[in-house]
Amino acid sequence: MIIDALQCGHFNRESFEALRRGGYSAVTPTLGFWEGTMESLDSLARWRDMERDNADLILIARTAADIERAEREGKLAVVLGYQNSNLFEDRIAFVEFFAELGVRVVQLTYNNQNELGGSCYEENDSGLARFGRDVVREMNRVGMLVDLSHVGDRTTLDAIEWSEKPVAITHANAASLFAHKRNKSDKVIKALAERGGVIGCVAYRNITPDAACATVDGWCEMVARTVDIAGIDHVGIGTDISHNHTPRDYDWMRKGRWTRSVQYGAGSPQRPGAVAKPEWLLKPESLQDVAPALLRVGFNQEEANKILRGNWLRLYAEVFRPN
Amino acid sequence: MIIDALQCGHFNRESFEALRRGGYSAVTPTLGFWEGTMESLDSLARWRDMERDNADLILIARTAADIERAEREGKLAVVLGYQNSNLFEDRIAFVEFFAELGVRVVQLTYNNQNELGGSCYEENDSGLARFGRDVVREMNRVGMLVDLSHVGDRTTLDAIEWSEKPVAITHANAASLFAHKRNKSDKVIKALAERGGVIGCVAYRNITPDAACATVDGWCEMVARTVDIAGIDHVGIGTDISHNHTPRDYDWMRKGRWTRSVQYGAGSPQRPGAVAKPEWLLKPESLQDVAPALLRVGFNQEEANKILRGNWLRLYAEVFRPN
Repeated sequence: MIIDALQCGHFNRESFEALRRGGYSAVTPTLGFWEGTMESLDSLARWRDMERDNADLILIARTAADIERAEREGKLAVVLGYQNSNLFEDRIAFVEFFAELGVRVVQLTYNNQNELGGSCYEENDSGLARFGRDVVREMNRVGMLVDLSHVGDRTTLDAIEWSEKPVAITHANAASLFAHKRNKSDKVIKALAERGGVIGCVAYRNITPDAACATVDGWCEMVARTVDIAGIDHVGIGTDISHNHTPRDYDWMRKGRWTRSVQYGAGSPQRPGAVAKPEWLLKPESLQDVAPALLRVGFNQEEANKILRGNWLRLYAEVFRPN
Repeated sequence: MIIDALQCGHFNRESFEALRRGGYSAVTPTLGFWEGTMESLDSLARWRDMERDNADLILIARTAADIERAEREGKLAVVLGYQNSNLFEDRIAFVEFFAELGVRVVQLTYNNQNELGGSCYEENDSGLARFGRDVVREMNRVGMLVDLSHVGDRTTLDAIEWSEKPVAITHANAASLFAHKRNKSDKVIKALAERGGVIGCVAYRNITPDAACATVDGWCEMVARTVDIAGIDHVGIGTDISHNHTPRDYDWMRKGRWTRSVQYGAGSPQRPGAVAKPEWLLKPESLQDVAPALLRVGFNQEEANKILRGNWLRLYAEVFRPN
């Protein structure tokens, strides 16, 4: 069984069937990037409808125990998450509200600095700002996982230290293995691990080494090098796979409503548009090939299970709260 | 112990202390009149803060059992309600969301027709509209009480019939006792009672007979006449008392953002502004004087208890759902 801590795009019944075929136990879809409260509630409503319409296939998980229940029932657990904190619209009270409505993962910033802190793409990272400190502690209290992917290094380090619960980098690679602003320094990864957090290795070409895109064994070698940095209890999977993406979606992710300029996100003038999926992960169900490949690159079964599922499940159990 | 199904205004610690002194078991404050989703969430957040700041005095009740717990703990139970359905902003999914956040009573319309149906002040009442039908059934499903005060007669009758659960008129008097658009015809009251609903008698001067404003015995006589219409199991109290009201609040209640014209609400050109409180109810804690007065006008103790508390509690138990 596999837990994938970050996917994007437009899910439908076919997506859920593919994920189940691929042996996924749980997945976190992205319910929002730049969306404010109303749009975020609308997104939540769409997932409630999807749960109702596909009750034989999925369930929205609020606890680690819900994920284990989904596994027993042969269903896919969906852990609801947002890649930005705009859903709160500067209201500390809304953290609790969204938690009560089932949201379990929120990334502090997406590609831009906001009221909480600095993004990985800003020239100067403010560190965790005053509202950010309040939100992190409130997320601790109500049982939401703090996600520090896309967040600037200084803010990331501040949040790791300030949080009373372990935190996550759901989808980033080690910058020492592939230099990119979106990836995380060894210093950050080690600090995360020391406080009990987990980093999810990515399979998105713009921030992943070529060898890790070419073969599943190459990707698992990258995972092994990440384990060398973080330790075996602190590495998981966060593919950043997109379902049914269109050019409009890329535009929204990169530009939102904040700019009329050209933006490449994790791309570049040399790689402006959508990039090819890794050769070994053309379909989401191929993620199951990671399981035997982890053994081939030298992990034993127990270690492989931690990477595939156990580390996320342990973190979720530590952070999530029923309601 | 007394349950008051409708009060307004700005509550604070002094209000809660007064209500406890007055023997209130539960009260429904008005969290919104014209407010949309965001403002309604902000209002909800203020009540969460008030609950946190006054945890020794109040609790937000989600079930009838919570009200009984509040009574045992010597606290005031607050049953969260809105006097309009604007909080949903045309989204059927938001009914479930607000229920999960603790909202338990929603009036279908305030003084204006809306997407759900007609108001008591409209010349032509559409009856329960298509969205209104969906909302009523969704409120049934998620455990929210449908409030038909301020709602037009035709829409009220439609909703009584369409609802699968008993409904409420939390704050209106019998029009046969005081002719006013805000009050309810005997036909409506009887239909409500036949389906298990409850009407809350009002102590707001603009819609209450003079004799019922002059003395508590006069008001209890009015209650007795309402029982003659509805039956002893279907009458309760919904005073419509306001805490710390200002002229700005009256303006908001009457005009919202929908008009620049002069509006009198339940008043009139002859009674344009705030009206005097009933002589016997200058302070909310004086509502406790109703208990002995109900006995003086001829009710026995068991009947009095139904009016004071039991009928609302029975209805709440039938409708509310834990979450």
